[in-house]
Parts: sequence; C-alpha cells; structure tokens
Amino acid sequence: MKKTPLALIALVAAVPALSQTPTDALTAQAERAAESDAVAWNFVEGLTTEVGPRQAGTEAEARGRDWAVKWLKANGLAHVTVEPYMMDTWVRGAEHAEVTAPFPQKMAIAALGGSASTGDQGIEAEVVYFPTYADLEAAPAGSLAGKIAFISHDMRRTQDGSGYGFAGPVRWTGAGLAASKGAIATVIRSVGTDNNRDPHTGGTAFPEGVAKTPAGALSNPDADQLERIFARGKPVRMKLVLTPQDLGQTASGNVVSEVVGRDPSLPPLLLACHLDSWDLGTGAIDNAAGCGIIAAAALNVAKAGQPLRTIRLLFAGAEETGLWGSKAYAAAHKGTPIAVGMESDFGADRIWRLDTTFSKTNPDLHKRLAYAVARFGVEPSTDEAHGGADINLARESGAALVDLQQDGTHYFDLHHTPDDTLDKIDPAALRQNVAVWTAVVGVLANEPGEIQPPAAAAE
Amino acid sequence: MKKTPLALIALVAAVPALSQTPTDALTAQAERAAESDAVAWNFVEGLTTEVGPRQAGTEAEARGRDWAVKWLKANGLAHVTVEPYMMDTWVRGAEHAEVTAPFPQKMAIAALGGSASTGDQGIEAEVVYFPTYADLEAAPAGSLAGKIAFISHDMRRTQDGSGYGFAGPVRWTGAGLAASKGAIATVIRSVGTDNNRDPHTGGTAFPEGVAKTPAGALSNPDADQLERIFARGKPVRMKLVLTPQDLGQTASGNVVSEVVGRDPSLPPLLLACHLDSWDLGTGAIDNAAGCGIIAAAALNVAKAGQPLRTIRLLFAGAEETGLWGSKAYAAAHKGTPIAVGMESDFGADRIWRLDTTFSKTNPDLHKRLAYAVARFGVEPSTDEAHGGADINLARESGAALVDLQQDGTHYFDLHHTPDDTLDKIDPAALRQNVAVWTAVVGVLANEPGEIQPPAAAAE
Repeated sequence: MKKTPLALIALVAAVPALSQTPTDALTAQAERAAESDAVAWNFVEGLTTEVGPRQAGTEAEARGRDWAVKWLKANGLAHVTVEPYMMDTWVRGAEHAEVTAPFPQKMAIAALGGSASTGDQGIEAEVVYFPTYADLEAAPAGSLAGKIAFISHDMRRTQDGSGYGFAGPVRWTGAGLAASKGAIATVIRSVGTDNNRDPHTGGTAFPEGVAKTPAGALSNPDADQLERIFARGKPVRMKLVLTPQDLGQTASGNVVSEVVGRDPSLPPLLLACHLDSWDLGTGAIDNAAGCGIIAAAALNVAKAGQPLRTIRLLFAGAEETGLWGSKAYAAAHKGTPIAVGMESDFGADRIWRLDTTFSKTNPDLHKRLAYAVARFGVEPSTDEAHGGADINLARESGAALVDLQQDGTHYFDLHHTPDDTLDKIDPAALRQNVAVWTAVVGVLANEPGEIQPPAAAAE
Repeated sequence: MKKTPLALIALVAAVPALSQTPTDALTAQAERAAESDAVAWNFVEGLTTEVGPRQAGTEAEARGRDWAVKWLKANGLAHVTVEPYMMDTWVRGAEHAEVTAPFPQKMAIAALGGSASTGDQGIEAEVVYFPTYADLEAAPAGSLAGKIAFISHDMRRTQDGSGYGFAGPVRWTGAGLAASKGAIATVIRSVGTDNNRDPHTGGTAFPEGVAKTPAGALSNPDADQLERIFARGKPVRMKLVLTPQDLGQTASGNVVSEVVGRDPSLPPLLLACHLDSWDLGTGAIDNAAGCGIIAAAALNVAKAGQPLRTIRLLFAGAEETGLWGSKAYAAAHKGTPIAVGMESDFGADRIWRLDTTFSKTNPDLHKRLAYAVARFGVEPSTDEAHGGADINLARESGAALVDLQQDGTHYFDLHHTPDDTLDKIDPAALRQNVAVWTAVVGVLANEPGEIQPPAAAAE
C-alpha cells in the first residue's frame, strides 16, 4: 500500500478530466476488481465455513468477530478494533407445528425473532385465516380471543425489493396486531418468494402494553396447503410448540477498520455491512457477501495507491435483531463528520442502478460515478439514495449517501432461511459487485472537493 | 360408461387400420385427455391436501387408502377393494446433527428409513470422509471402529434418472457397508440434485449379520459445507441425535379397482402406482401424481366406450419401505395372466419416450403406439421396457411391459424431501402425462390379438 503504481497516477491525474473521458482512468481499478474475486469470495467462504451461522448476541457472533478481526489484520487493514456494546438476546428453541383438524399433518415452521414461548407442551387452538394484513386490521377488537391467527399475505418477487415493503409488515407487526385482538399465537406465511419448505425467520415486535405471544412463519408451500385446507370450509385447528428464550443482556460488538487516507482532516467514507446472521443459514448472502464486497473494494482502492480520504469499514453487529450495532456505532461516534455513507446488504446479485443524494447538487460528481460504473452495466438514476440500516451515523449527520442497488429478484428466495448458504452465490455476480464498488469508492475516496454541498444536506 | 359415443366408434373402427393412419382415431381421446387435466389434478390436490404425508404402515397411509377408495367409487371405478397385508414399520423420531469440532455448527439431516436410533442423548465421534462409495469400499476392515462415516458421493441430474443408479447405492447400502467396517453411524450426502437445505430420506438396508447403526442424509449444501470443513485439514467431530423407532408389524394394504372390459376372458392391463409416501413431504410427485395419471387415463378410455380388455388399477401400499404392497399383490394374484404391465412412478414431468418389450416381436403394435403418442412429443425407442417396482406380478408372469418414460431432470430435486408438495407440479405437464397414457391404454385395452407373442416372453 506504500507504492504509487501506475494505476494511482492514472486515477489521480484523470480525476479533474473525468467528466469528459473517464474510461482510461478507471481501467486499472476495474481490471484489479475483476481479479479480486478471490478476496470477496474467500472472505465469504471462510466466514461461512469456519464460523457458520452468527446469531446476534451469541458466542457464534463473537466467533464471527474474532474471525473478521484476524482476516482484516491479515489483509492489511489499519486500526482494526472491536467496539463492544450490550444487547437483548433472543434464541430459538424447539419448533413444531401441525394441523390437528380436519386433516392432521405436520407443517414446517420457524419462530420469529421476539416470539414468546408456548412452553414445552405447546398450545392447540382453532385457527382464524386472514388472506391479507388488511383483513387482520379489519378484525374487531377481542375477536381473536383464544385463537391462533394465520396471516397469509403473499409476496411477489421484485427487482428493487419493493415486495418486502408490501409483505414485510405482516412479519414486523402482524403478531402484535393479532395479539392486541386477543390471539394467543400467530402464524404467518413466510415473507419470501420461494416455494421450498424452508420458512423465513426475522424479527417481530409487539406494541407497548401488548403481551408477547408465540409467533412463527410457515413456509410458502405450507401456507398454500393451509389455504387449501381452509377452502374445504371446516374448522381448522393447529398445535404449536415454539420454545425460544430471551437471554437478557449479552455482549456484542462492531468490528471497525480503516484504509487511512493521505489527508485525515477530510471527512472519511463510511462503508458498512453486518457480520451477524440469522441462525438458520450461514448468512452467506445476508450478509457475509456485503462485508466481503466492501472489504475487497477498499483493498482494491488501497492497492491503487493511498487514497486522499480515509475509508472506514463498519462490520456492524446485531443488525438482524434490532440494529443494535448500528445504534451503538452512531451513539459512540456522534458528531464525527462523514463524507459519504454506503452499505452493501442486499445479497450478492449484480448491481444494476446507481442512486446518490447529490445528483442535483453535485451533478458533475454524480456524472463521473455514472461513467465509472456504466461499463459494468449499471444505470444511473436521479432517485434519492437512502442508505441502509447500518449507516445511521452517516444519515443522521447529513452525509452524502450512495446506493449501489443490487438486483433483488431472487434475494427473498433465500433471505432469513436455512438456504442462505455459500452455494447460492454466483462468483461472477460477486465479482461485478466488487468491481462497481471499487470504481465508486475509488472516485469518492480521491475526491478533494465537497461531495455533498451544504445546501443539499439542508434540503 | 354405458354409452357408446362417437369417440369409441372411431377408436374401435380405426384400430385395424391404425398402422397406416392412426391420427384421426386418437383425436377424440387426445382431446378428452387434454380436458381431463382436472381429474388427475384434483386427485393429487385432494389426496395431498386432505391426507398429506402417507408413510407406509402408519394410520396416515390408512387414511390415504380410505380417501382413495372413496375417490375411486365416486368416479365410477368397479370392484374397488382394499387387499390387506402386514408389514414391518419404521417411523422417524427426533433428528439433529451438528459439527462439534473444529467449527461448531448445526447441519440439516434426515434419518434414512431403517436407521437405528442413537438414543435420546445421541452420539459424538470423529468423522471419516469418503468422497465416493468406492473410497468407502477401499477402507480396510475394522478401520472405522468408533467413527462416523461420511460418504459424500455426488449425483448429477440426468433426464433418464441414471444418476440415481450411480449415487443410489450410497443410500441403499452405504450405512451397512460402513457398519461392517466398524462405523458407529453413517451420514451421507443426500441422493438428490438440488441445493436446498432439505435432506433426501429413503430406505437403507444392512447386510445379514451386521447390526443396524444410525444413518442419516445431510442436505447437499450441508455436505458441501462438511467437505469444506474437511478441506481445512483438522479432525472433524459430529454429534448425531436420531431417534427413529421400529414399530414391528402393522397393517397396510393395496387399493385395487377396475374398468371392466367387454371380454373378461382376455388377460387385463395392469396399471400401477403407489399410494404411500415418505413422511417429509406430501408425496405429490412421489407418487400421488402417478395414481392420478393412471386413474385419469383409465377413466378417459372408459368414457370413450367400454374397452375390450379389463383395465386393472393397482394403487400399491408401502412401496417406499420395501415394496410390501407389490410383493403382497404378486403373492395374492400369482398365476393370474396379465396382458400388459405399466407403472407411473417418476414424478409429473412430461413423458418423452416410449419403450415396450415387443418392439421386435410385435412391431405393428409398437408402431401403432408410437403413432399414438407422437403428437405429444414422445419419441419411440427400441430399448427394452423394464416396468416399475409395483408391477412385479406382470414382470414375473411374462406380461408385456410398456414404459412411458418421464423426464427426470428435476425429479431428484424433490424426491423424498419435504419439498415434494403440490406446488411443484406443472398442470400442463400432468395433462401431457394423462394424454399419453390415455392414448396408449386406449390402444392396448382394445387390442384383440396377442400383445406379447410367447416367443418374446420366452427370450
């Protein structure tokens, strides 16, 4: 990282002229990115193999942090540090669901994070079917007393992930809403787009004053089956055994590291991902891939020569169960100026669109980024970037945000399921992510001027 | 079924001339078959919804028989009968697998049918890795004492299912072979072609004089993971908890029914499938689809007018755990002449090839069948038909056999897994199966002459 090879010279020399002829300047980086597949892949392969699942607040997440610290140091990152915090930790127990009437049969279920326990003996009750979240909303107060609610709200696959916004509330708040109307438990159709018998877990929250109830997700084929059973018009009963536990406060932590820039007085770039995963899979796409992508990109930029600005990597902890890591990082670094916040947390499929918060206020820079990524098939947009869950600090401080939008068409086939494993990642797609990130981070980390003019931040 | 509509007249009238101009004669049947999608589909939808999994020898299989009897009677089949027999019954218990060293993590496992129990406390031991079945064969006697064998023999997808012949022995006999060399348990890579975290179960057998051991299948992604863990070169240990039980002898049965032919003195057609399924899925492709296909085809032929020969339907019981139903049927009906044996037990994807046992000895009939199915994209072959597991009686009696070969490219993604559910069936493909079966059964059931000349049977 001390040498100043041709690539850096080309990059720095070309920046002022990039708005006209960016192609040559970025060639070296792009080629490097294409070669760097092994870096991101080896990160993901190593973390998912040697640690496996990394549930927030558990010793498995701690092993993940240790592994990441070792990897970051071995790869030459600077200031590798664990920033600890305490969090509320929930862990899965036994889980079993069966229809007991009219057609007895088992169903595949996974408890939702935050679910209460049924106790070892389980509960058995009549089930009330709600085709959509709106149907549950329309149910009268008290109407679910003693019943199990089944919310079957379905989700279509979308490239931009908007289906998650449509169906997600069922998981996020459906159990709490049903509980507020008297339900003793809730089962939902998985918030997912596959038809495997692998339910999608994820967190659920109960409103203030509503006691937690057991809550689980059925796989899509099981939800289909339950709908067919309801279609026969007979009363439906289910037995549920879900025995998760709240462990109280346990230790977690963020792993931070840096590529130190030539001018430490300039606000740094903050690139984020999360190290924790749900417990069912090995968290390959959610989100080992994101950490591998941002780390590989930072290393590519560093290899091209020391960048002007510092690049800070945040491998956040405990994203899945309530953004504990992101909140702790924002609290610990409150007031630290950040130039640009970027996050990779939407799988490992190809990036197809570039959004920024400065397309109107700094159109030249936006245009240079657009040029830089066009060769990878990435289209620019003038949609406002929103950043992700782990860059709260950047968002709160009014930093510029850049979203490198990944194709989410297949993401919700795997999200939060046992199927989130290494074999689901296409190495060529992972490489494209690294290449695009390298190009964008290369430009931004060497940008001497204001990235997001104050007027834009104040808008 | 008493009327003699135009379709039958066309069919019967055309038969003698079919070797020249078969097309018109079969149009009515084919059209009927295209319309009959609902019959096969409704059978599969009903059985898999209202009964669900139907493990051999259990009360669930009995519910499946009751359901089928009711359905067959409601649809006008004659002589609907349950033929009971006793069988040895094995049922699944708890199942849990985890790597305990060097990288602790859970793995998805399913016990193999016939597996012994580890006891509730489970067992924990060092694992020995065998990339292929041949590697296990090469292991010295006694070399696995106290160890768990891991056989990772991989399987490619094939259209004709030959991959099952290549990888199947690992499941059928791998645990017994490992036990004979001292292994205290065996885990295998699933005999399957998908990359979901849903292991493929299925029966395993131990040789005479070798005590049964616990045996389970890991999903393909878990087997991949275990290989990666082994690649780190450190000793690997696993804990297994598998608590299946042998229930001893329980009652099972075959469901038989008929479309009665005009000439009961002629040997009948025997069309077979099996009603039982493994317990993990609802047995939609294995093998509710097969029963739906043969029943819909028989009804189509009957609707075209009473056939010359009787069509006998055998919905066999307990195929999965040792062909108990097929053996009982063959023993009960020993000596009964059968004209043709046919079976549908390879999923619900399209039929692509016609094989018979009489392509050389009765080329005219073979050719007429080939003409009849060509319109559905089915190519004829001169490969010898072998029939399936449930038509032992036909095979043993030297009957003609006809195989309507289904495309097996995707079959082993689902075979014996929780994913064998209704949503995996393409209604258009199911309809093509019914159409092809209708055409073939229509010709054969109205064939007055000898179908398989004695010379051929004696070959």
